[in-house]
Amino acid sequence: MKSEIIAVGTELLLGQIVNTNAQFLSQKLSQQGIDVYFHSVVGDNRERLLFVLEQASKRSDIIILTGGLGPTQDDITKETVAHFLKAKSIIDQQGLQKIESFFQRRQIPMSPNNIKQAEVIEGSLVLPNDHGLAVGMIYKANGQMYILLPGPPFELNPMFENYAIPYIQEQQNSPVKLFSHVLRFCGIGESALVTELEDLLTNQSDPTIAPYAKPAEVTLRISTKAISEEAAMSKIDPVIAQIKSRVGEHLYGEGDHITLEEVVLHTLMRLDMTLACAESCTGGLISKKITEHPGVSRFYKGGVICYTNDVKEKILNVDSKLLQQHGAVSAEVAEQLAIGVRLALDSDWGISVTGVAGPESVEGKPVGLVYIGISNATNTEVIPLQLAGTRKGIQTSAAKNALFQLWRRINHIQ
Amino acid sequence: MKSEIIAVGTELLLGQIVNTNAQFLSQKLSQQGIDVYFHSVVGDNRERLLFVLEQASKRSDIIILTGGLGPTQDDITKETVAHFLKAKSIIDQQGLQKIESFFQRRQIPMSPNNIKQAEVIEGSLVLPNDHGLAVGMIYKANGQMYILLPGPPFELNPMFENYAIPYIQEQQNSPVKLFSHVLRFCGIGESALVTELEDLLTNQSDPTIAPYAKPAEVTLRISTKAISEEAAMSKIDPVIAQIKSRVGEHLYGEGDHITLEEVVLHTLMRLDMTLACAESCTGGLISKKITEHPGVSRFYKGGVICYTNDVKEKILNVDSKLLQQHGAVSAEVAEQLAIGVRLALDSDWGISVTGVAGPESVEGKPVGLVYIGISNATNTEVIPLQLAGTRKGIQTSAAKNALFQLWRRINHIQ
Repeated sequence: MKSEIIAVGTELLLGQIVNTNAQFLSQKLSQQGIDVYFHSVVGDNRERLLFVLEQASKRSDIIILTGGLGPTQDDITKETVAHFLKAKSIIDQQGLQKIESFFQRRQIPMSPNNIKQAEVIEGSLVLPNDHGLAVGMIYKANGQMYILLPGPPFELNPMFENYAIPYIQEQQNSPVKLFSHVLRFCGIGESALVTELEDLLTNQSDPTIAPYAKPAEVTLRISTKAISEEAAMSKIDPVIAQIKSRVGEHLYGEGDHITLEEVVLHTLMRLDMTLACAESCTGGLISKKITEHPGVSRFYKGGVICYTNDVKEKILNVDSKLLQQHGAVSAEVAEQLAIGVRLALDSDWGISVTGVAGPESVEGKPVGLVYIGISNATNTEVIPLQLAGTRKGIQTSAAKNALFQLWRRINHIQ
Repeated sequence: MKSEIIAVGTELLLGQIVNTNAQFLSQKLSQQGIDVYFHSVVGDNRERLLFVLEQASKRSDIIILTGGLGPTQDDITKETVAHFLKAKSIIDQQGLQKIESFFQRRQIPMSPNNIKQAEVIEGSLVLPNDHGLAVGMIYKANGQMYILLPGPPFELNPMFENYAIPYIQEQQNSPVKLFSHVLRFCGIGESALVTELEDLLTNQSDPTIAPYAKPAEVTLRISTKAISEEAAMSKIDPVIAQIKSRVGEHLYGEGDHITLEEVVLHTLMRLDMTLACAESCTGGLISKKITEHPGVSRFYKGGVICYTNDVKEKILNVDSKLLQQHGAVSAEVAEQLAIGVRLALDSDWGISVTGVAGPESVEGKPVGLVYIGISNATNTEVIPLQLAGTRKGIQTSAAKNALFQLWRRINHIQ
């Protein structure tokens, strides 16, 4: 099946935002074995959207439109697609109820234009929006599938994954599907990983092995087409075994969505242990990552953002002489911070991060120098790192490496 | 002049990278007063690129192609455009010399396919590549301008700014450029804002007013074409004044890039005051946003992620009876947390956030109920909010609203 993605929104043509929806959808469609042949972006303009729809209808089996489902006048996607397909718009009653109860709950009046968000093309499969008010839809016409999705990524992504993908899978009449398995690595760069696996990557044909670098992480996606998951895994498993034998020490998880904080949380849960964090240069990033997940208060006691020396001393009991002697960015302070936060917050494990996120050096220490402290009742360790990148990149790397090193230690992986 | 951007590269259609070139070029073209009406992405495929060129040639004055200028077999942009325009390819001697000396300097043999990077369409204006080997070009045909640029952003961006833009400016016979001014709002939803400004939005023609919703924020972009910034602002200023008179209490900043944490930091800096945060349901998000900016340690003391009651009591001195009586999600606890963090970290201002981020209700309190505490030496206030969205959405809204409310209070905006 051939597909294409049409993003509707003048803000894209003005360069106010970047089209990450096209990237997300392309990844997901590729994983389903569906070719994406074109992306287009068009403004909130009926005539030009009709022009793009006309072309798309001549060349693609699946036409995905993103954006323009909102309540305002410049949200024209639904009415334009309906007009193009000579179809009628109706109100989705479930969608409307949701909008009404949203405004009732908040005790604010619903403006009449909000009703637009419950409008659908008659005959569509309605895609519920679990994270917003504008419903999506799939409309079939002339053997083609038109999929309309909301613009905001936090609404689009789960709607596409949870409601559109299962429908597309049902419609695909080929018995062969694409299966893939993702391995996730930390503490090793993409080029080092690729070098370790060079012969495997050069000689790959089926399964394919695709490396992909994310900040402070690398993933490998091993994919093959097969009639069942079992048949696919019988081809994929031997490849995984070979990869693990070479770079297994950096592997922290398997699967599409697992994150470093999740593997840490799962381990803490399994062992019924608690954690507390002292963050200096990461400034709250580790805590933020952990607390994005619900129900963590049993395992995560909390943290202290010890951005000033004052807080390091007063709340986390770091020796002021040590701070003067070695500076805040030092192995000695990282050690005391990890112990200090563990004792102050009464947790089984304490981690600390202190370093120079940049752009300026601090205490004569270079940008990217980071110390990670990891402490439990019997032992405290400090891991020095020299990281590269922007301020944000260094903060992200430091946070991920801290979680990775903690996870290794809780699991006794040395 | 009407323009469009065509990106050539299968890696974009697989979702391996995101099309940031289109964003960059759109911003630069808009600033020149050139309308961008379409973006397209097409793979490294001659037939489909010809299809896209055919359409573009019918509708745009300036057609910009990015990517596919490299030395490998799948780099097909130049030969396809040459074929489409019935033009000849030749070798640019300056470009070739640069490639040859590059390989000589590095003492590695030059492979024959590298010559491809110096190929240009005969009759083009050659655009030098100051950061790579593949030259770019501008070719004029049938009154249209075809601009070919390399894919890597660090090559494309300076080439476009330094060589293409001056040429385009020369060719433009209009002295008129687009100017725009962005207003940023918090504490009001997009539909409420749109309702307040409905007549202005309906009757807009020049300047135009475009609303755009981001999580917990709305922006309005007011744009007009004029011969100078002064002339533009004389049209834009009255519109801004009207908007401010209606929804000014929600306006926190003006400009393309300013953020809530920046306006807070600028105010603290101006008044030489310090801040500390106690974060329960936002779990570190406020601290993380603030510490993304360098040099904040003079104004930001740090924070406490008081994820458990234990930490609220032990570190932030919240009364345990109060916690039992009212629960952690209560105005009473928000108040004590804001005071507690201000005193514990010895700051001028303390803010606290406690609430139910979901997905489950807590203490019988509904998802989205959030209390924000704001405290200084003379006064402590608590603001209750009922927020909607996912866990992450509620956390983001709570963090942004806390910063917004703090900013209002520091600036005595009631």
